[in-house]
Amino acid sequence: MSEHNAPVRVAIVGGGITGVILALGLQKRGIDYTIYERAPAFTEIGAGIGFSPNAERALKVVDPEVYAVYKEVASSNAEEDYFQWVDGHRSNEVVSKLLIGVDAFQGGRRSDFLEAWSELIPRDKVRFGRDVDTIFQHENGNVTLKFKDGSTEQADIVIGCDGIRSRVRQLILGEANPASYPRYTNKYCFRTLVPMPQAQAALGEERITNRYMYNGPNAHCMIYPVAMGALLNVLLVLSDPGHWPADARHTAPGDKQEAVRAFEDWHPHVRALVDLLPDELDKWAIFDMHDYPAPYYNVGSVAVAGDAAHASGPHLGSGAGFGIEDALVLASVIEAADREVRGATTKKKKKVEICRDALVAYNTVRYDRAQWLPGATREAVELFQWQDERVGSDPEKFAPEISRLFHTIWDNDIDEMVKGAVREFNTVLAGGPRAHL
Amino acid sequence: MSEHNAPVRVAIVGGGITGVILALGLQKRGIDYTIYERAPAFTEIGAGIGFSPNAERALKVVDPEVYAVYKEVASSNAEEDYFQWVDGHRSNEVVSKLLIGVDAFQGGRRSDFLEAWSELIPRDKVRFGRDVDTIFQHENGNVTLKFKDGSTEQADIVIGCDGIRSRVRQLILGEANPASYPRYTNKYCFRTLVPMPQAQAALGEERITNRYMYNGPNAHCMIYPVAMGALLNVLLVLSDPGHWPADARHTAPGDKQEAVRAFEDWHPHVRALVDLLPDELDKWAIFDMHDYPAPYYNVGSVAVAGDAAHASGPHLGSGAGFGIEDALVLASVIEAADREVRGATTKKKKKVEICRDALVAYNTVRYDRAQWLPGATREAVELFQWQDERVGSDPEKFAPEISRLFHTIWDNDIDEMVKGAVREFNTVLAGGPRAHL
Repeated sequence: MSEHNAPVRVAIVGGGITGVILALGLQKRGIDYTIYERAPAFTEIGAGIGFSPNAERALKVVDPEVYAVYKEVASSNAEEDYFQWVDGHRSNEVVSKLLIGVDAFQGGRRSDFLEAWSELIPRDKVRFGRDVDTIFQHENGNVTLKFKDGSTEQADIVIGCDGIRSRVRQLILGEANPASYPRYTNKYCFRTLVPMPQAQAALGEERITNRYMYNGPNAHCMIYPVAMGALLNVLLVLSDPGHWPADARHTAPGDKQEAVRAFEDWHPHVRALVDLLPDELDKWAIFDMHDYPAPYYNVGSVAVAGDAAHASGPHLGSGAGFGIEDALVLASVIEAADREVRGATTKKKKKVEICRDALVAYNTVRYDRAQWLPGATREAVELFQWQDERVGSDPEKFAPEISRLFHTIWDNDIDEMVKGAVREFNTVLAGGPRAHL
Repeated sequence: MSEHNAPVRVAIVGGGITGVILALGLQKRGIDYTIYERAPAFTEIGAGIGFSPNAERALKVVDPEVYAVYKEVASSNAEEDYFQWVDGHRSNEVVSKLLIGVDAFQGGRRSDFLEAWSELIPRDKVRFGRDVDTIFQHENGNVTLKFKDGSTEQADIVIGCDGIRSRVRQLILGEANPASYPRYTNKYCFRTLVPMPQAQAALGEERITNRYMYNGPNAHCMIYPVAMGALLNVLLVLSDPGHWPADARHTAPGDKQEAVRAFEDWHPHVRALVDLLPDELDKWAIFDMHDYPAPYYNVGSVAVAGDAAHASGPHLGSGAGFGIEDALVLASVIEAADREVRGATTKKKKKVEICRDALVAYNTVRYDRAQWLPGATREAVELFQWQDERVGSDPEKFAPEISRLFHTIWDNDIDEMVKGAVREFNTVLAGGPRAHL
């Protein structure tokens, strides 16, 4: 077997949810891959995670076993599930509801999902402690990854799944490009876990058994039970006109009094909720890629996926789902490319061209949908915080707007997306050689 | 004066011809600038240089004093000047001529021009030994340059005039982007200087007093007198199907026998010329940016100019001229931006937006023309080496093709280019805020 016909080798940079699902999708399809993770183990920041209906459907297509593992870990509710919005400023009443589905939008701890999925990955497919320094695409198609420890590895395709502060993104867009860095959305969060008896005493029985969001001026608040109902997860999101340097850490020490002030004229119920916060806690700045979007997700045989490509705020709960959709499309087009490379077609393009064609197809299929998410997430948080001038605090106007945003996410036809990606790959493949992108 | 109204500060990375002419153009227009050069002094690689008619006209508009210095250094011929092509393979006869003009296309040693121009630059405007590591564009518009010695500097605009292996290009396009690196054109040169008595003995009187190019299959050869007629400059350009790694040095030890073999079936006159080469000499690989062009010349307030933007082979003798045109356009739009920043208009955009608008206008005005050059240069060398299938070795077909290429370069309306650039700046300025490019 000549190098020209040798199977495609994929380097996955980053072992978060997008990287691990991509690995499992490639594994299922018999594609050679290696994960390079800079941490000494699989890691995911952020505590809670929910999987939207589109993410669930995508997981099934990635690999039924990956889906089964997900279902084992997820906390099932097995009944009709709703998002419910409360006017937290005036009435403390539920003013909007959105049906999600049956047994849908399940969640849990990020690290639990990642741990369970990563058990499906053989140890020799992962290199921990490998931090990418630079990447170079050779004329012959080999891609060299150089790590900060001076070591190097070769691949045919590199996918950066290295998160919101992606190094791979810097390497395909340039360190001087503002699109290489996420920017502050002028929102930040406080998050805490409250023992359920304490939460029940403050909020009553009704609100602690399901998911609720409290809306009001320039802030919102979400609560939901976790740990089999032993704890209430409390998330406050505050608007902040201030500045947060792009190159600074996204977490900083915060002060409960900031939250108390932000909610001081809200309904007593919400103020009681804010009182549950400990006196000292970190605040978490929400960054995204809305102001300076990536102009493309691939350059030649190197691409970015998940937050590395289109980091969004968490307010629509769809970042992981979009990363999973990216991973599924990538696994599908890389499978098609690998088949083309190994096949005996006489008029075949060079391996490097076939690999690029796969990533061009990925970019074409995913770009518009994924680029939509950061802006849609900003729209959502403005709706939640009564900052949308057309909607304000009017629940009649709120309901159709928020429904449109969520359904754009949830209603994605996963099977058609995969078929469309392979079709697009074949179209690009049938075209001439491409010098770039 | 608030920071918002403070004059625009320009950082010029690289003190070659493009960087120095940009500096002088800004100086003439009263704009604050600093040159950062990694070498300990002003340097230019390559020995001989010619300035095409468009370059001459552009130098006058940059600053009449800059033009005057150029005219002092250049070797004048003060008569009608021609390019002359000889069939070096069969007849050794001049088969094509192209009128350049009167007292036009003067040349000399690169270092002589650079030295003379750099004397117009105050010492405190130049920092030698400063090698750019990275560049970061802050949200407030400040641009930080970080150097390899750990030091940092601030500017509002950064222009990378750092040549074919530009670091600034890597920083706006990404290290993993093939467009960040020039590629081998499959041509390389041998160059030598021959004492005139020796040259005259080999070639006769006629050919040593003017400029001639010898054409033939898969190679060509140029000669012209330098050093007040004391030396004959000999340049051989050979085709080479081989590989030259993108990350390797562009010069390597060569062997006269390679040249002897390449010209072995040529006319005895040309073989006598090749015999003038010393036994051991360096070969110089011709790299350019044709295969992987930069998709844009600016990202926000950082741009590239000259070879950093559109490196071309030397075969049309127009690289320096295009760098000078870039510098003139940049000086013009930055002058307009500086005036806008310092002006008291009430509806003014932010300083950072005005600076970006200037570079967007530069990109728009220069991109198509400058991108044309690398491909046109490849066309030219194919014509010279009888590799163009439509033209072959037919001088009747050669003449109109080569005339078209040179006149596209020479006939550029410099005044209209400058006016158009300022108009374009005003158009961009009048538009909305731009997030990117």
